[in-house]
Amino acid sequence: MKPNILWSMALLLSIGSLCHGGKVLVFPLEGSHWVNMEVLIKAIHARGHMLTVVRTDKSWYIKEKSPYYTSITVPATKGFDEEFVKEGLKVLIDLERGKSSMLNFFKMQLKIFSKMSEAHAMMVEAATNMITDQKLMKTIKESQYDMILTDPAWGTGILLAHHLQLPLVYNVRWITSGEGHFAIAPSPISYIPMMGSGLSDKMTFRERVKNMLFYILALYNDRFVIKPSYQAFCDKFYYPKVDFNDLVQAADLWLNRVDFVFEFPRPTMPNVVYMGGFQCKPAKPLPEDLEEFVQSSGEHGVILMSLGTFVSELPNDLADEIAAAFAQLPQKVIWRYKGDRPTTLGNNTRLVSWMPQNDLLGHPKTRAAVLHGGTNGVQEAIYHGVPVLGFPLFFDQYDNLLRLKERGGTRILSLGTLDRHIFLQALQEVLHDPSYRMNMQRLSRLHRDQPMKPLDSALFWIEFVMRNKGAAHLRTESYRMPWYSYHSVDVIGVLLAAVLLIILIIIAVIRYLCCRVCCNSKIKMKHE
Amino acid sequence: MKPNILWSMALLLSIGSLCHGGKVLVFPLEGSHWVNMEVLIKAIHARGHMLTVVRTDKSWYIKEKSPYYTSITVPATKGFDEEFVKEGLKVLIDLERGKSSMLNFFKMQLKIFSKMSEAHAMMVEAATNMITDQKLMKTIKESQYDMILTDPAWGTGILLAHHLQLPLVYNVRWITSGEGHFAIAPSPISYIPMMGSGLSDKMTFRERVKNMLFYILALYNDRFVIKPSYQAFCDKFYYPKVDFNDLVQAADLWLNRVDFVFEFPRPTMPNVVYMGGFQCKPAKPLPEDLEEFVQSSGEHGVILMSLGTFVSELPNDLADEIAAAFAQLPQKVIWRYKGDRPTTLGNNTRLVSWMPQNDLLGHPKTRAAVLHGGTNGVQEAIYHGVPVLGFPLFFDQYDNLLRLKERGGTRILSLGTLDRHIFLQALQEVLHDPSYRMNMQRLSRLHRDQPMKPLDSALFWIEFVMRNKGAAHLRTESYRMPWYSYHSVDVIGVLLAAVLLIILIIIAVIRYLCCRVCCNSKIKMKHE
Repeated sequence: MKPNILWSMALLLSIGSLCHGGKVLVFPLEGSHWVNMEVLIKAIHARGHMLTVVRTDKSWYIKEKSPYYTSITVPATKGFDEEFVKEGLKVLIDLERGKSSMLNFFKMQLKIFSKMSEAHAMMVEAATNMITDQKLMKTIKESQYDMILTDPAWGTGILLAHHLQLPLVYNVRWITSGEGHFAIAPSPISYIPMMGSGLSDKMTFRERVKNMLFYILALYNDRFVIKPSYQAFCDKFYYPKVDFNDLVQAADLWLNRVDFVFEFPRPTMPNVVYMGGFQCKPAKPLPEDLEEFVQSSGEHGVILMSLGTFVSELPNDLADEIAAAFAQLPQKVIWRYKGDRPTTLGNNTRLVSWMPQNDLLGHPKTRAAVLHGGTNGVQEAIYHGVPVLGFPLFFDQYDNLLRLKERGGTRILSLGTLDRHIFLQALQEVLHDPSYRMNMQRLSRLHRDQPMKPLDSALFWIEFVMRNKGAAHLRTESYRMPWYSYHSVDVIGVLLAAVLLIILIIIAVIRYLCCRVCCNSKIKMKHE
Repeated sequence: MKPNILWSMALLLSIGSLCHGGKVLVFPLEGSHWVNMEVLIKAIHARGHMLTVVRTDKSWYIKEKSPYYTSITVPATKGFDEEFVKEGLKVLIDLERGKSSMLNFFKMQLKIFSKMSEAHAMMVEAATNMITDQKLMKTIKESQYDMILTDPAWGTGILLAHHLQLPLVYNVRWITSGEGHFAIAPSPISYIPMMGSGLSDKMTFRERVKNMLFYILALYNDRFVIKPSYQAFCDKFYYPKVDFNDLVQAADLWLNRVDFVFEFPRPTMPNVVYMGGFQCKPAKPLPEDLEEFVQSSGEHGVILMSLGTFVSELPNDLADEIAAAFAQLPQKVIWRYKGDRPTTLGNNTRLVSWMPQNDLLGHPKTRAAVLHGGTNGVQEAIYHGVPVLGFPLFFDQYDNLLRLKERGGTRILSLGTLDRHIFLQALQEVLHDPSYRMNMQRLSRLHRDQPMKPLDSALFWIEFVMRNKGAAHLRTESYRMPWYSYHSVDVIGVLLAAVLLIILIIIAVIRYLCCRVCCNSKIKMKHE
């Protein structure tokens, strides 16, 4: 019997005996976030719990009907905007290639801020629609859910958990205002890089200044762009008054979608469980025609390329350059691409609209992967130990790839100067320099060398919360302190004042004594 | 098959396949610290690894010969001083009962400081004796140990790990200068009580001031009492220069002897593994005569009393008061006591020189335990869910019991006013108020509700370090930063200076412009 089977059996027995079918209310997020939330939902369902997923009537990925959950559909005025992503990508690439101005880039940044603010307002609207729908709230209350599971990059689940007074579990990497750790664990800016800063955990003085500026920007973003709409909801519906950020921090359990093979080591908290790579699994056999194509690569093997859920096409000229580079390789290439067929496409390259990415990454013929750097893809590459050529576009993608680069598992391309020669040279380096593969295989070994599989660990703690009605003993209440108390500013102030007072008294006494001595000698002198 | 057996089998298989018999060099500590280190040593030995224990020729508890380890005996000038503990206890009790002055207490405190400094100097002497014994060092190097396991409350193992360049694992609650967490994880003084302060994690302003003063005292203690002898060793033997505190923080793995059922929740780090209660195990049957005595208690059950490894007797008058209180109870009492037989001893009380404490705590007839509050005993009481009457003497004992008290599992006695009536009343409260038992049983359930047994978890990570030659990816290098960089003091300084400069420039420009306007109008006025 293999160890893994035994672990799973042990988990099954040890949990099964303690926890009967529970009820979980899920507030997921769209897009790639849904991809991994669905993995968790399926696993929770497989353990005999009932799930209800809250979606809006404009939901893009989250289906109304599923064998794994029932759903509640809340009206929303607007859905997620795929066109916006395309537009953003175009501005970005044009800018990097010098075809667009910084002004356009800033305009785009402002547009992104406004879109983010809009998206959060939309989520608050969904929460308002729910909380004011008395019939719906009655049904939910009567359903007696055991906990709420949410991706806190959107705040609806957080708002509703407070209203329903239910234990709250996060499937988290981002919270509404940034990286999750920054909300829950002490995060020294001196060695913890802000997302988007493109910095690692080892910074020069200049880099630390940059990181601090990014931190200040993130604080601004939180206080003035994101929080207001959530806080307005809290002010309207909750009495006694609550601070939205306190609600964010009050979650019972943070199932964090990273681990420290991927993420830089940093302070953490007892109620953070690391489940990075929980979606990874051994490769299944490929569909017959794909397997045939892969096998036809012979000793050279195959290369994958995928730019993730959002980006399925590129500007034509850029796609042509990439295709031309691929055409010069002896390897076979499988490219997930929906745009116009590049004119320079070689016979060795197959365009597909979807690929079984995990199974391909785990295939023994796979030599390298060209990835945009989404968390899911990077974790899968680590799991299977496949070297990566990084093609970051936006969001956290550069930062994710940087984490691989620091460990020697990837080379990162810069969009600005990209042409067929640069692409080919970089890809050949990743293919032929053995250090890339060795480093990725080392990361893979480390990632797998855990006492429990990440998904089993996540399931254990989800059921722990249901069994124990929360995880209060793992959670500090420190977030309820005002910032000046938390940082001991008041205490240090009082102690410094006390020291100052003592010094002043000593000086006063000395002056008084000196004066007395002087006066005495003057009087003496006068008398003499 | 029971889940526990499956877990253990899985652990055995999953680790067994990855890690062949390793070699561990152990630097343990005396007294109660050895009690739990020996548990770990036996468990590591049972997994097929070889252990070598370093002891001094004055070692008190640590035997030279053992079926579990070979030993290296290093010459030392002085052993641990049992008489000193007795003397300290007498001063403490006399003080609390108003029979001694504060002056005596401070004298005792100074003596403790000096004894601590002496003990550390003795450890440095042992390290010096080792490192200068070329034959011994050659043997150790040739033995090719895979890691060093040490209790870092003494620093010998830390010093030698750096010399031998071996991965370093701590069995830790205390480091040389205080509580382990304070050395490795960010520890806001605002809600993390200093040991010895008698504070919980919820403090008033005055308590936070007290905590800060304790923190400053601890810094003083570290810098001026403890560190100097270790630093002198580093300065003498290591080049390039190393800071002893950096060596402390550089350990690969911290196996911490607490968990968050016992300890207040607080920030932690990725390379801290919580193994609180790792020494606890289900009760075995009692020796026949003890079982008979226990059974003779009928429905009333039994009470245990033990004051730990160091304190086996009390001043006669105090022992008489306690015995008199016991004599009035319908329960049977088992009291671990080596002093003179109290004159007031009842028929229901049996004095023993040793007791199978774990088996007694786990016995269904056990109703309560009177404990001094050592970590081992408190963890065992939690494991078995037995309510505790706390009888703290010194070291961390009050703080340990406070953690139980905050969860409603114990009442703490004050030595100063203790007589038979107060002792009896307190004990009866713990026996008859059901909340004490309910709370301890809740803690017991929470403690056992973990995905892995603490000892299995410790073993997994010990073998992880041997397999991977350390755990570098779980350890931040932040401790190598100077404090002003770590706390971003330099960055904030530069940014503030920049802001100030900008303000000054703006003011200067405005003044210049104003001046120009004024001058112009004056000139105009002159011309007019």
